[in-house]
Amino acid sequence: MLTADERIDQLYSSNLKIIQSSKYFAFGIDAILLADFSKVPPSGKIFDFCAGNGVVGLFLSHKTKAKITLIEIQPPLADMAARSIRLNQLQNQVTVENMDLRTITDHFTPDSIDYISCNPPYFRINEGSLTNPNKALAIARHELAVTIEDIIANAHKMLKTNGKLSLIFRPDRLDELFVLFKKYHLAPKRLRFVYPKLNDNLDANMVLVEAINRGRENGVKVEPPLYVYENDHYTKEVRRLVYGQ
Amino acid sequence: MLTADERIDQLYSSNLKIIQSSKYFAFGIDAILLADFSKVPPSGKIFDFCAGNGVVGLFLSHKTKAKITLIEIQPPLADMAARSIRLNQLQNQVTVENMDLRTITDHFTPDSIDYISCNPPYFRINEGSLTNPNKALAIARHELAVTIEDIIANAHKMLKTNGKLSLIFRPDRLDELFVLFKKYHLAPKRLRFVYPKLNDNLDANMVLVEAINRGRENGVKVEPPLYVYENDHYTKEVRRLVYGQ
Repeated sequence: MLTADERIDQLYSSNLKIIQSSKYFAFGIDAILLADFSKVPPSGKIFDFCAGNGVVGLFLSHKTKAKITLIEIQPPLADMAARSIRLNQLQNQVTVENMDLRTITDHFTPDSIDYISCNPPYFRINEGSLTNPNKALAIARHELAVTIEDIIANAHKMLKTNGKLSLIFRPDRLDELFVLFKKYHLAPKRLRFVYPKLNDNLDANMVLVEAINRGRENGVKVEPPLYVYENDHYTKEVRRLVYGQ
Repeated sequence: MLTADERIDQLYSSNLKIIQSSKYFAFGIDAILLADFSKVPPSGKIFDFCAGNGVVGLFLSHKTKAKITLIEIQPPLADMAARSIRLNQLQNQVTVENMDLRTITDHFTPDSIDYISCNPPYFRINEGSLTNPNKALAIARHELAVTIEDIIANAHKMLKTNGKLSLIFRPDRLDELFVLFKKYHLAPKRLRFVYPKLNDNLDANMVLVEAINRGRENGVKVEPPLYVYENDHYTKEVRRLVYGQ
């Protein structure tokens, strides 16, 4: 069931087993934070865009009875996600679609989804850091296959009115994000900034955002900050998410 | 020098004396936080929009040798500010203009200012809370005389390229603020969220923002959170700002 470069990681907080691959993609703390932040409805339909090996969607399955569809463009990653779904016997709730999310309205009915989560590529092409020579890792990290505008535009099309989109993103692109929300009629409603270390006076290095489709503006709530490390170990909050303790 | 409803408050951290009036306007912690957050240049020209009794501009005078002009629409407040300037013997550095900032380009040369600070009215008309029956307080609190769009539009006109605007505002209007920055070619560069109380799991109730005129997007830094209270007293950081200790 596993190829040579793969391993199975256990998410102890949820008892989930996730197939990981150093060659393609290994999830990080950002996926776990996004799944925890996302206030998914108890039932209905959920999409996870840029699903990678499926960790966000699999984690969400423990928070809801909704049907969850993972959208992933890279065949090897979609295949890893499909195998993780079987490994966790979640076939009745979670499915994978290996497709380009820019074509999603050709395959699914617009205006039909209750919630979409997405851990997108963080970097513009030619920005920030060198594009990884490993194509699969480059696509996960840089906007080669999909841009944040594609994600927001298609989320807007697929979501019902008052359906929600959750994202984890880079704080330095927050201005671009808010302008795109406005352009595509999503209103940001909850923000939470993630700081690398408690008591260290560092700027936030991630931001969690939830926006509502066709919602009213001026309802932004900024939740308490989330710190990942305290001294050299995870904070209590992150420990609970990763290890369930 | 004082009218019946006025008193002189001392800002111990800066040795400033500020004339306050319960009838018109008394500054709050927001003015002090804004002055502290604002990274004013060491020289050049600074405007303080919506100056009220002048507390922000007076506080800034201790951080720079730049000439500071306070813009205030209400005559009694502009008068209080003028008297506070004399009380602190700052006539050579700080002046007051009693005017509507929407007409500012009729009185000053556009593209000539290095830094603008503004503690604006927080509420839209008919929004949030009842409009104060005291007209002077209502104008300070609600967008009766000036809106956030007026402020940003005129800041853009008055600032040099790469000149900066600092604001304190309500987090729930952050979406509107970012869309207006984009519209008027200001790029937000620094954000700091203010939380009412440490360890209390409350949402932010103020946000400090600095934006750069005609700057490039995608350079937003989100600084560590600022907490006002810890248990029932000011936090160390706020104590330093208010009492200088």
